[in-house]
Amino acid sequence: MRFDQITLKNLIHSYKDWPVEGNTFRDLTPLFNDNKALHLCAHAFVERYLDYGLTHLAAIEARGFILGSIVAYQLNIPIILVRKDGKLPGKVIRDTFTMDYGERTLEIQDGSCGEGDNVLIFDDLIATGGSILAASTLIRKAGADIAEAAAVVDLPDSGGVEVLGEANIPTFTLLAYEGK
Amino acid sequence: MRFDQITLKNLIHSYKDWPVEGNTFRDLTPLFNDNKALHLCAHAFVERYLDYGLTHLAAIEARGFILGSIVAYQLNIPIILVRKDGKLPGKVIRDTFTMDYGERTLEIQDGSCGEGDNVLIFDDLIATGGSILAASTLIRKAGADIAEAAAVVDLPDSGGVEVLGEANIPTFTLLAYEGK
Repeated sequence: MRFDQITLKNLIHSYKDWPVEGNTFRDLTPLFNDNKALHLCAHAFVERYLDYGLTHLAAIEARGFILGSIVAYQLNIPIILVRKDGKLPGKVIRDTFTMDYGERTLEIQDGSCGEGDNVLIFDDLIATGGSILAASTLIRKAGADIAEAAAVVDLPDSGGVEVLGEANIPTFTLLAYEGK
Repeated sequence: MRFDQITLKNLIHSYKDWPVEGNTFRDLTPLFNDNKALHLCAHAFVERYLDYGLTHLAAIEARGFILGSIVAYQLNIPIILVRKDGKLPGKVIRDTFTMDYGERTLEIQDGSCGEGDNVLIFDDLIATGGSILAASTLIRKAGADIAEAAAVVDLPDSGGVEVLGEANIPTFTLLAYEGK
């Protein structure tokens, strides 16, 4: 299957001033609700990462769980859940950061990866890069390396890719949208 | 691969009095973090549902997203996201119910399924059945039928399977644990 940006962009709806004024929300829900688009996206990531020597995929709650789980499964690697504060029981590693809608804490379970591991971070979208940067901090605190951070959509005007680049986190996305 | 309850039960950790006093939390995170267990679970669901004539899988936020997405992908059917209040943009269908930790509203996007559709509802665990019952209400409001509700774990003492049975929702789970 060839990667087809137009198919995907026709499915992703844009909602102006949602969930807050001044923000345009790019909604990937219809893409998950379309079998062909879902496979098209998953294939694009799986083909890219087949020979990356990945040991884990870290999926960021909650929209990153959808394609992230599928890609991890297809690559035969385990999933690390990167969840919001208080959702994971047991001993956790945590990091707090500031994002567009306020402050957020992300956590992973202690022992979910470690030294010598090579982790792909997965989310639906890269905006300011805050979530992915926090997830990377967690993975590095656990002793593992970051292979790359992947997402379906990039919003270049929000500068996330540059922020992540400065932290030595390469990025890969399928689509980009102008504006924040 | 044979379905192996012991492998799974060895991975699922139990946390007493978490997140609230009197509740024992069955944590599936280590199962998602184990490649073989993840495949073992996914296979069990995929084999069961290959000939069910499913048109969609409705995955309940957030833990239902993990295996739910994989199973939908393997069955080549689209995913309906069943999300908490205020997470989905655009026109939504919603239902509010009471659960152990308080009241909760679940939503699906309008148009994500409709008349003639045959939907599998997917979550990580069945306790009181509240989330799955609410998800079923949403799917039925959209005009579609419920084929079954599937989860990894059943807690029979919480009575969810009976509650769902009374609402004509058959259930299928891989494992059961005594206690609430």
